[in-house]
Amino acid sequence: MNQRAIVLLSGGLDSATVLYHAQAAGDECYALSFDYQQRHRRELHSAQAIAHSAAVHGHEIIPLDLGRWGGSALTQRDLDLPRQRHPAAMTQGIPITYVPARNTIFLSLALAWAEVLGAKRVYLGANALDYSGYPDCREDYLLAMQQVYTLGTKRGREGQPIELAAPLLHLHKGEIIQLGQELGVPWELTWSCYQGEEMACGMCDSCILRREGFRQAGIEDPLPYAGT
Amino acid sequence: MNQRAIVLLSGGLDSATVLYHAQAAGDECYALSFDYQQRHRRELHSAQAIAHSAAVHGHEIIPLDLGRWGGSALTQRDLDLPRQRHPAAMTQGIPITYVPARNTIFLSLALAWAEVLGAKRVYLGANALDYSGYPDCREDYLLAMQQVYTLGTKRGREGQPIELAAPLLHLHKGEIIQLGQELGVPWELTWSCYQGEEMACGMCDSCILRREGFRQAGIEDPLPYAGT
Repeated sequence: MNQRAIVLLSGGLDSATVLYHAQAAGDECYALSFDYQQRHRRELHSAQAIAHSAAVHGHEIIPLDLGRWGGSALTQRDLDLPRQRHPAAMTQGIPITYVPARNTIFLSLALAWAEVLGAKRVYLGANALDYSGYPDCREDYLLAMQQVYTLGTKRGREGQPIELAAPLLHLHKGEIIQLGQELGVPWELTWSCYQGEEMACGMCDSCILRREGFRQAGIEDPLPYAGT
Repeated sequence: MNQRAIVLLSGGLDSATVLYHAQAAGDECYALSFDYQQRHRRELHSAQAIAHSAAVHGHEIIPLDLGRWGGSALTQRDLDLPRQRHPAAMTQGIPITYVPARNTIFLSLALAWAEVLGAKRVYLGANALDYSGYPDCREDYLLAMQQVYTLGTKRGREGQPIELAAPLLHLHKGEIIQLGQELGVPWELTWSCYQGEEMACGMCDSCILRREGFRQAGIEDPLPYAGT
């Protein structure tokens, strides 16, 4: 019998690749997304399209107003996003796009759903190499969260802890795209740009990393970019 | 200058005591409550009254539908609550009132607010003695969550981790009530009963522990109980 799993699905290419990876591994997947007052809803439409394309067994979008407290350029529209930064600059310091405790909040809600659903694991598309500034994407943090998963639930206390899986943690963006390509990820449905315009801007950190990743993988990015 | 702190405030007597304790310690307190589709809203009214009485600097009530997945007698009205259990029976096994990942979810959102607010600590009224079944009220769990607080935030990574404080963890209910009495906690504003009727039922686990606690402390509980 297949095991149930929950996949945190943002609409970006990392979490889409994780979803296709989990499906290929034989897990019965349920997708979880958050409408957290991010700058734009476009990524939620992408998440829905990807979930549909992967034929998940369920997809929940939880409303959660993380913008109420501010503290991030991703939820405060009056803060400017970095533009045209070199990828090397993105590995230094914690970026202004950091959203306080975001992964902890998402992983907590995923844990609740996993326990009720009887899911064996929760998948997260975290990556610690190319955009290493986010504190809640690093391995030591994920190990601490695994402890919370184990000690903070009935399932964990009864010896059946829910596993927190981050299969992309040590891959470069180009490697992630190569993996996703083999798994048949529909890149045209994914959305990476921090802006929510008609076309991806090509200049925010997320666009730059995506384009650099496709270049490294030797694969063509099907998304059009503004001004190119 | 006083330090800011966030207090998770449920409307029950433990979290009310923690709030008065934090105020007495000189912290500038902000209260955080959740409208999580618990069986009744009465405890939220209690939380508001207690926050007002303590003159907190802010009080947020976050809507969060934890009932969508079920899994607990506190969010599923078709599940019966235990009645007339002896306190000794309550320390065995994980009760049906356990809400999957509830403290992890609440503590995650408190962490986000704490980081944005520049708060030094987050207070939780967890108690591991008299109602020891909840996995997310035990010390090993709280230590794991402290690790998440430290590793999963900008503040923690920069050497200023937000502290997770559970000052009632090793107190018996009678001792908590003695402490609260010294601090001037307005017991008449607190609400413990799992039911949300006009009067407290006196027979659910929470009522039984409360009454036993007041008896042990030698203090009169100002709340009336049904049928007594």
